[in-house]
Amino acid sequence: MAKRCERLGTSAAARSALRDAEAVLFDCDGVLWRGEAAIPGAAEALGRLAGAGKQLCYVTNNSSRTRQAYVEKLQRLGFPPAETRQVFGSAYCAARYLSHALPAGGAAYVLGGAALSAELEAVGVAHLGTGPAPEPGSANFGSRAPLDPSVRAVLVGYDEHFSYGKLCLALRYLMRDGCLLVGTNRDNRLPLEGGSAVPGTGCLVKAVETAAEREAFIIGKPSRYIFECVGKEFNIDPARTIMVGDRLDTDILMGNNCGLTTLLTLTGVSTLEEVKGHLESDCPERRKLVPDYYVDSIADLLPTLQD
Amino acid sequence: MAKRCERLGTSAAARSALRDAEAVLFDCDGVLWRGEAAIPGAAEALGRLAGAGKQLCYVTNNSSRTRQAYVEKLQRLGFPPAETRQVFGSAYCAARYLSHALPAGGAAYVLGGAALSAELEAVGVAHLGTGPAPEPGSANFGSRAPLDPSVRAVLVGYDEHFSYGKLCLALRYLMRDGCLLVGTNRDNRLPLEGGSAVPGTGCLVKAVETAAEREAFIIGKPSRYIFECVGKEFNIDPARTIMVGDRLDTDILMGNNCGLTTLLTLTGVSTLEEVKGHLESDCPERRKLVPDYYVDSIADLLPTLQD
Repeated sequence: MAKRCERLGTSAAARSALRDAEAVLFDCDGVLWRGEAAIPGAAEALGRLAGAGKQLCYVTNNSSRTRQAYVEKLQRLGFPPAETRQVFGSAYCAARYLSHALPAGGAAYVLGGAALSAELEAVGVAHLGTGPAPEPGSANFGSRAPLDPSVRAVLVGYDEHFSYGKLCLALRYLMRDGCLLVGTNRDNRLPLEGGSAVPGTGCLVKAVETAAEREAFIIGKPSRYIFECVGKEFNIDPARTIMVGDRLDTDILMGNNCGLTTLLTLTGVSTLEEVKGHLESDCPERRKLVPDYYVDSIADLLPTLQD
Repeated sequence: MAKRCERLGTSAAARSALRDAEAVLFDCDGVLWRGEAAIPGAAEALGRLAGAGKQLCYVTNNSSRTRQAYVEKLQRLGFPPAETRQVFGSAYCAARYLSHALPAGGAAYVLGGAALSAELEAVGVAHLGTGPAPEPGSANFGSRAPLDPSVRAVLVGYDEHFSYGKLCLALRYLMRDGCLLVGTNRDNRLPLEGGSAVPGTGCLVKAVETAAEREAFIIGKPSRYIFECVGKEFNIDPARTIMVGDRLDTDILMGNNCGLTTLLTLTGVSTLEEVKGHLESDCPERRKLVPDYYVDSIADLLPTLQD
């Protein structure tokens, strides 16, 4: 049945959608909080969902935080206590992917920061490349640095130290036979408070893909892989799972592709105006971006959860 | 008439194609030279073409050399003497474009090096950004550096100092109303001797386009713009002009799009195998990559030019 993005009010349909759900997956930034400020009422809503026995999970494309950092942030902002196994960040899931996909003795050349390094370390994936790289003019600049013979994958995540030298090195590894190319996510921009933004990991992935002339395997939403990680950790039924997110092209698309019930919250990136454009479109690809339901804020779930 | 990529031998057709041409445009790297070594016989072939009264021009996507540097290299490798006005590099043509497209008092934020800066300087385009940029952690890192109010365009060229901080700054300028986005070219890779390669400007353009969520105006081949620059400098008839290049997706496509006779030389990037794939394809886009003629090397023109 075609999804129509209905307001999830206090109707009988809303009650039954929430009552029947066994698991609720949340995107974090723009859904539970913005920066360091919790969305008002969000913590209480999640408390009630947990109290009603729903399995809560946190599914985020952000590769610059470890799972432990999410557990601590949830606690700091008053959300129900969470364990690291409930957190599916693209850094952790990328590490998990490489721990299976890399051949024995293989290492990853990583464009990314400390969190990505920590998650790789935690699952035992050998890696190099995080942090600053040599400047042009240096003997070890990426176009001429010696290659590490153990590298069998290039992993692209959020990297404040991304540079042309790193791009050179990534290309040189990717020109070797059988070298995997993995990206944590394709987010174009990370919005900041006040309407500004910084470039997302998607820009860095595109740069590497363009050089390598091939597509990366993507870990984060809308890729199914990150949901498969949830499914391997918790025995959940997609038909009884709700995905809650603020982005149509990542959260809602992943949820729809995986057979989940999808709920858009308007406290983040995407707008009802965009949904309207997709609803009116004849393009099947755009129709996949339409959620089942929307709320202005997940605090709107509170009245329905009160009894 | 469909192009068929015939060998340009010493046939009557070859003689008349060369005899009738008034102008011959050459890509440089992979056509006239590889690195610092001239293609054997190339200088002599160009000498004969010039001697026969053909207008020679040099049309290159490389944005890391000035026109003057090309004039000097042609001289150093024994090619016929050239003036700067015969050289159409993407750095010079980008400067020319911005000198018309920028509003009065407008400046360009430039991802690029000294050559791009020199060409902008030469045509009087105010600009900033070339060379190294502040590191993460610095107060002037791109995500928080103050913006220059005069910037009305972002120009992306080849930049060894390309970094995440520069990408941040480019995005912040591009989020302002009316800021132009211009790329010198879309080349994915720059091949090096020995089968290695470094990432081309196309990778950097893609990164900026992905952040800005819009397409750049491209100066270099296959864009028509670089040929329009030739046409403004020399009164040439496209029907009596030959474009000689080693890349199907830049040189040959541009020539075909502009109504020129196209000649592929096999001393560089593209192969006859690729042409064969395009010839056998039903896709109209791929058919545009088929040249009129090919030679193993432009030295093969010598016998036809001997009388």
